[in-house]
Amino acid sequence: MIIENGKAKEVKIAYVGGGSRGWAWMLMSDLVSCEDMSGTVRLYDIDKKAAEHNKIVGEKFNGAEGAVSKWSYEVFDTLSDALKGADFVVISIMPGTFDEMQSDVHEPEKYGIYQSVGDTVGAGGIVRALRTAPMMEEIAFAVRDNCPNAWVINYTNPMTMCVKTLYRAFPQIKAFGCCHEVFATQRLLATALEDILGIKGVTREEIKVNPIGINHFTWLTEAKYHDIDLFEVYAKFVNKYYESGYNEELQDNWANKFWKRAERVKMDLFKRYGVIAAAGDRHLAEFCPGNWYLKDRETVDDWMFAITDVLWRREDLKTRLQKSEDLRTGKKNAVLEPSGEDGVNQMRALLGLHEMITNVNIPNVGQIPNLPLGAVVETNAIFRTDEVKPVFAGPIPKQLYAMIAHIVGEQEALDEAIAERSLEKAFNVFAGSPQVRCSLSDARMLFDTMIENTKEYLPDYK
Amino acid sequence: MIIENGKAKEVKIAYVGGGSRGWAWMLMSDLVSCEDMSGTVRLYDIDKKAAEHNKIVGEKFNGAEGAVSKWSYEVFDTLSDALKGADFVVISIMPGTFDEMQSDVHEPEKYGIYQSVGDTVGAGGIVRALRTAPMMEEIAFAVRDNCPNAWVINYTNPMTMCVKTLYRAFPQIKAFGCCHEVFATQRLLATALEDILGIKGVTREEIKVNPIGINHFTWLTEAKYHDIDLFEVYAKFVNKYYESGYNEELQDNWANKFWKRAERVKMDLFKRYGVIAAAGDRHLAEFCPGNWYLKDRETVDDWMFAITDVLWRREDLKTRLQKSEDLRTGKKNAVLEPSGEDGVNQMRALLGLHEMITNVNIPNVGQIPNLPLGAVVETNAIFRTDEVKPVFAGPIPKQLYAMIAHIVGEQEALDEAIAERSLEKAFNVFAGSPQVRCSLSDARMLFDTMIENTKEYLPDYK
Amino acid sequence: MIIENGKAKEVKIAYVGGGSRGWAWMLMSDLVSCEDMSGTVRLYDIDKKAAEHNKIVGEKFNGAEGAVSKWSYEVFDTLSDALKGADFVVISIMPGTFDEMQSDVHEPEKYGIYQSVGDTVGAGGIVRALRTAPMMEEIAFAVRDNCPNAWVINYTNPMTMCVKTLYRAFPQIKAFGCCHEVFATQRLLATALEDILGIKGVTREEIKVNPIGINHFTWLTEAKYHDIDLFEVYAKFVNKYYESGYNEELQDNWANKFWKRAERVKMDLFKRYGVIAAAGDRHLAEFCPGNWYLKDRETVDDWMFAITDVLWRREDLKTRLQKSEDLRTGKKNAVLEPSGEDGVNQMRALLGLHEMITNVNIPNVGQIPNLPLGAVVETNAIFRTDEVKPVFAGPIPKQLYAMIAHIVGEQEALDEAIAERSLEKAFNVFAGSPQVRCSLSDARMLFDTMIENTKEYLPDYK
Amino acid sequence: MIIENGKAKEVKIAYVGGGSRGWAWMLMSDLVSCEDMSGTVRLYDIDKKAAEHNKIVGEKFNGAEGAVSKWSYEVFDTLSDALKGADFVVISIMPGTFDEMQSDVHEPEKYGIYQSVGDTVGAGGIVRALRTAPMMEEIAFAVRDNCPNAWVINYTNPMTMCVKTLYRAFPQIKAFGCCHEVFATQRLLATALEDILGIKGVTREEIKVNPIGINHFTWLTEAKYHDIDLFEVYAKFVNKYYESGYNEELQDNWANKFWKRAERVKMDLFKRYGVIAAAGDRHLAEFCPGNWYLKDRETVDDWMFAITDVLWRREDLKTRLQKSEDLRTGKKNAVLEPSGEDGVNQMRALLGLHEMITNVNIPNVGQIPNLPLGAVVETNAIFRTDEVKPVFAGPIPKQLYAMIAHIVGEQEALDEAIAERSLEKAFNVFAGSPQVRCSLSDARMLFDTMIENTKEYLPDYK
Repeated sequence: MIIENGKAKEVKIAYVGGGSRGWAWMLMSDLVSCEDMSGTVRLYDIDKKAAEHNKIVGEKFNGAEGAVSKWSYEVFDTLSDALKGADFVVISIMPGTFDEMQSDVHEPEKYGIYQSVGDTVGAGGIVRALRTAPMMEEIAFAVRDNCPNAWVINYTNPMTMCVKTLYRAFPQIKAFGCCHEVFATQRLLATALEDILGIKGVTREEIKVNPIGINHFTWLTEAKYHDIDLFEVYAKFVNKYYESGYNEELQDNWANKFWKRAERVKMDLFKRYGVIAAAGDRHLAEFCPGNWYLKDRETVDDWMFAITDVLWRREDLKTRLQKSEDLRTGKKNAVLEPSGEDGVNQMRALLGLHEMITNVNIPNVGQIPNLPLGAVVETNAIFRTDEVKPVFAGPIPKQLYAMIAHIVGEQEALDEAIAERSLEKAFNVFAGSPQVRCSLSDARMLFDTMIENTKEYLPDYK
Repeated sequence: MIIENGKAKEVKIAYVGGGSRGWAWMLMSDLVSCEDMSGTVRLYDIDKKAAEHNKIVGEKFNGAEGAVSKWSYEVFDTLSDALKGADFVVISIMPGTFDEMQSDVHEPEKYGIYQSVGDTVGAGGIVRALRTAPMMEEIAFAVRDNCPNAWVINYTNPMTMCVKTLYRAFPQIKAFGCCHEVFATQRLLATALEDILGIKGVTREEIKVNPIGINHFTWLTEAKYHDIDLFEVYAKFVNKYYESGYNEELQDNWANKFWKRAERVKMDLFKRYGVIAAAGDRHLAEFCPGNWYLKDRETVDDWMFAITDVLWRREDLKTRLQKSEDLRTGKKNAVLEPSGEDGVNQMRALLGLHEMITNVNIPNVGQIPNLPLGAVVETNAIFRTDEVKPVFAGPIPKQLYAMIAHIVGEQEALDEAIAERSLEKAFNVFAGSPQVRCSLSDARMLFDTMIENTKEYLPDYK
Repeated sequence: MIIENGKAKEVKIAYVGGGSRGWAWMLMSDLVSCEDMSGTVRLYDIDKKAAEHNKIVGEKFNGAEGAVSKWSYEVFDTLSDALKGADFVVISIMPGTFDEMQSDVHEPEKYGIYQSVGDTVGAGGIVRALRTAPMMEEIAFAVRDNCPNAWVINYTNPMTMCVKTLYRAFPQIKAFGCCHEVFATQRLLATALEDILGIKGVTREEIKVNPIGINHFTWLTEAKYHDIDLFEVYAKFVNKYYESGYNEELQDNWANKFWKRAERVKMDLFKRYGVIAAAGDRHLAEFCPGNWYLKDRETVDDWMFAITDVLWRREDLKTRLQKSEDLRTGKKNAVLEPSGEDGVNQMRALLGLHEMITNVNIPNVGQIPNLPLGAVVETNAIFRTDEVKPVFAGPIPKQLYAMIAHIVGEQEALDEAIAERSLEKAFNVFAGSPQVRCSLSDARMLFDTMIENTKEYLPDYK
Repeated sequence: MIIENGKAKEVKIAYVGGGSRGWAWMLMSDLVSCEDMSGTVRLYDIDKKAAEHNKIVGEKFNGAEGAVSKWSYEVFDTLSDALKGADFVVISIMPGTFDEMQSDVHEPEKYGIYQSVGDTVGAGGIVRALRTAPMMEEIAFAVRDNCPNAWVINYTNPMTMCVKTLYRAFPQIKAFGCCHEVFATQRLLATALEDILGIKGVTREEIKVNPIGINHFTWLTEAKYHDIDLFEVYAKFVNKYYESGYNEELQDNWANKFWKRAERVKMDLFKRYGVIAAAGDRHLAEFCPGNWYLKDRETVDDWMFAITDVLWRREDLKTRLQKSEDLRTGKKNAVLEPSGEDGVNQMRALLGLHEMITNVNIPNVGQIPNLPLGAVVETNAIFRTDEVKPVFAGPIPKQLYAMIAHIVGEQEALDEAIAERSLEKAFNVFAGSPQVRCSLSDARMLFDTMIENTKEYLPDYK
């Protein structure tokens, strides 16, 4: 990589999971929209064909209307080769197939356990972590051996467990995890600003927040738009929409059946705790005691959010495969659309092209003083040349501490279970999840079944 | 108080709840059995008549066979008068009546929530804390004003919340909480020593342990008898008795219906976590996820422990009232029986008569480095002249951290709710308890009913 | 204060020490140069006449060439009146007169103790702190009573002790201390960029640094200009100028005799510790063991920095008094010159007009994890609407820890001595200073004399 | 090792430095005086002949009057062989010869730096640490490879650096450092009890203290004899003897010229800080600013303590060599004398034969919350079966923090310098020592000379 005249050239981005039909295209779009950075994207995917297709798609983005920089694309046979000499490593993988995800999300339903996403915590999230962590270890070792100074950006879920594993496997890794849930909350606050005060056109970057917590269960203890304290604005917004929910218009769409959310969980948590929950309702619900929002399908309906069926994901993939084909063959044009993600801007900051403050998932060094050091937490950080420095976020508010510390404790214990490849220890975490509300013997049966369903990805566990 | 020739004279012990029919007599027995200490017990009780009866009973203990010291007894009209100039303050009160306790323990059963004790955590423990804390505040203020240098020994439940409240109300207080649950576990280990290795006659003091956790959910990370590591011994014992349970002989006794325990919960936790749970099964079950051991009455039966019905407590009180009458009138003789408690020995240590190490509930100053500072925790401490110094217990093992940190978080939040007299904040704690497994709306109804049932004791809450 | 159309109006800035001939004018200049803020400066000074003159001077700044906003000025008789309703409080006072400063700086010379500034640490700094802290307490109490939500910006030395005292007196105060020493180091790095790499025109704001330490003994563990690591650049610069010193051109000027510095101390510390010392040599020397750079006048000359004689300060004051007179009478015009300070920009950030990262002195909440919590430290912080959030700076490097922890320990002990108004405890700090290198009996004599010389300002000490 | 009937048999103690003429005999005497322990002492010394002589001497102790147990002695050629299967490892070595010690202690005198002991901190202690640490690394590695579960007891100075190095080299080591300086202070307090209150016959074990600090600069924040607070007693004692000194009777003895102490330093520190310094004056003086007690020989005389000339040590060795010869040949009988050390009792506790509380040097896990974790500190600990658990000692008092944190910082930095074998980093520590009061250039010359004088032992440094 070279910096000349304020522009970064020959930047090498290794993309693990580079056959992705979705994230990859967003990255491509953001990259060619950025005029002070150019270079090569090094694609690696266990589905090499998919990576090769994306190479073609990527090259088409160079010619898209509005593209202001050029990127070349290369496909590699091995992870090591893809990583060699990389400046950045982007990890966005699907751990396993939809079959394993089917089991993660829906097997627990047989025991009355409903999961709106099933990829972060609870029965599904825990089993997914068992499967994903060995992949993260492999990546971390490859980073250590091929590009130890590269910055590693993870988008894979379960986010916290992935970042935790990267650091356990290679403690000197320069890794962080990115998630857009806080951004959506900033946008909701901008919406409230318009709805309550009539202030229009505010961007999410203008909403200054203090995020604190863990991924998908992040909270805002402060939120301001210039001199306006958004807590008062949001309180009015919540009062207005608590009963009806917000965002009803989506309801008739078929997909919406699986993505619906009306912010009612978020508003309920605000009403009760006085702090702004900063993730989608489908995620938030999974961190709370199981009977609050996910007791049964009726409860979920009452709270107006959706359980995202893996069936929908399978259908959606078909759509995306078709889009991939269309892009590759030129039937569809590559069109630049801002992804709304911070990834490319973060890279620019790490290259020294600008300075930015945004939220990020990294190990706790004291940014949240009442959570254990080393636990992966989500707070603001400053991004500058070759550094990500957490901003002091303050302690978790007392009223939220039990819920958050419980999950942090689970994650620390699960990390130990993974490090030791111990299914017994993993079961203890599983059985203690606030979402796993069945008897011990049922928990055992469910766990055994779910492990069986994903055993192909758990060769070393015992 | 005066120390002469290695004996403490004119020791003044204020007893808050001095009308007690039970603890008070044990203390009287222990006091007259102790030859290097004598003085006055200053009885205070809102039931003054009960205190006056205990004065008579106490004086009879001076003449009991084996008594080696003399104690005088005085009854006071006000808390302030009782505390004036005290060297020690013993707190052993019943917060409210059995009517309130009836509600604490059994009201939740209407929602499928079973509680084996109901005085520590969960629905019953939380509501009991709301009622008890203002009494503790009153006592702490009285200590501050009348005997700021006295050592305050609390026996009242919920232990953690009581000690927490004493320190919040008067931060300079020299208070600690005593509980015999760890002692019972030491005795169980002595039993295992005999059962497995044939070593007889080992006393509980000879079993050296490292307790760690919070009251009624304390764990032993180490246990030794001289050079013998008791973890291996206990593992064999658990294997032998896990299915059948231990302590079956009690089963035919009527009272046993309400006190039964066969150590099966304790053994199950050991099998799964590899750490020795050091409280009775009835307590342990209440800290675990609700569906593990307290899902319903059948589950409780399977695990062979009892739900202690308040009905039994009412019956038991009648027996104790009769015993009080018999002792007072001389129909029964005062008989010295070692209580098995450490209270008198702790007083002796604080007076400088000896040095001892025992477990105690005090605010965390780092003895458990991964729990918040200021949270009331249970570990070993050294007792010496005018000091209680915690011993470093080490971090909570990762596998247990989620469960323990969850409850610590609840207690810190409940303390905040109490300090602010906020029922809303208290409800958040209540609804988040691992024991309160109903829907949010049911939780609200249950909470409201329970608060209504104890409202007489909650004048300042809103 | 009102925010309208992105501009802050009716901002109220109380200026304690508002008769200042220097800092006040810089503030006035910065204020009228700032187009999105206007309001009133409320001047208070024990020398009311001086404040009244500054009111006239301030009004002249409104008409200066280039002024883009208007500020009105008011003079108050009492501190309370000046603070009533203030949005900001600026503290820039002279604690005592040049007579006391004469004693602080020069009395120790009789014992072979030379001080280049004498207002921060060492004999002079300690005695100055004893005198200044009661004034800071008075201000903190006045803030508490008149404008508890105001942001308080301190410029007075000894900075650390002043900020420490403000927080001790009113723990809820929103105060921070500002110092430009780090800025000067950023400028030196920009100079090195030009000198070594030929890159011209870099502003100090473009030099991104990680400051860590305590005021006047701050260090940079990172320094970058875009993608350029300035440590390598600075190493070359130091090799080039270590022997000769840098900045020689000042040498013939009379004033320079008292302000000379050639960065040789700074360069020596870099050569030995590998970390960039980020304060002027005159300050740095006072934090190191006394015999390193301040052993005697010859040593000071060798290191090419100056001992700033109070004589010079007296002379300089005359010049400034004349300038005041000239400005007031119109003999001289008010001329806008950027002060190079961050104060006005910090106010703008706190009002929500923009966001900035800069270094600041505030109590440690973990931004430097290996210094005691509560000690006042200097690191970066984010300034945003109504908040100053420290950025995690990392631990003090091991090689520097002894020197820095020693001074932090002194400051914590001195704060205790001040809180108790104990001259005995203050003497212990004094005698233990690395700068006070005489025998215990000499230290006692010196301390007694210095206290005698400033006793008018120490009425409560004993 | 076997425990039978409450006695430990076949205990294996490896003695590194087993040719010692002094410590070894004390250990032999203590061992045969202890009736519940027997086994083998495995002697290793680079001077094998000396070890062989000690084998003969040790065997004679078995027949000494009063001996109640038997120990066999073996001599080994290699450290590994000596350690194989050991239960305990005792380290008591002389790092280098008296020639190197001559340089450590007396070379600095040429620069006006006087050292009373010169083996702990300051110029001599730092250079001695550079020489000793590689030996400790070698021992730690041998423990790791030959007896990883053995308890390692270090008596070698510089104590803190030795223990620090053992843990750095083998983090799982079970090591602690023992020093009798606190014991001597307990004895002084017993003396004060008799002198002031007329209470006779109190043993040092009955004086209950709370030691806090670092080896040879330990302080007592509490001291009690039963209910008597010894601070008041000691204050009277200090007032009585401050001017004259205590312990004058030694003055005419020749050796005393090199060992004199009159507790005047200790009393001065108590008068000024109100805390009881708990090491000998010769040690304490070396931790304070150089000009307090060690400014020059006159100052040392005034404070009535001695500079222990290495000349004396050379003479003393001759005496001990003669004694060795006499013991070996039977010219003198082995006579049992209690050593006053806790070593054998600590071993008994670690074997589970009893429980004890005593002071010890181990890494900080929070027993002193305001010192860095991992720094080796001295506080009380509980010794029980296979464990040493620190007791919470509380924070270093604010008035002492600067002095103690300074030295802790030095030791942490020196450990880093040793780990990196960096003489440059070692020089920074050296030049920053409160004892090294010369100019930077003189410090450099002195350091270079001292390093040259011990270079034989520093092969890896650069």
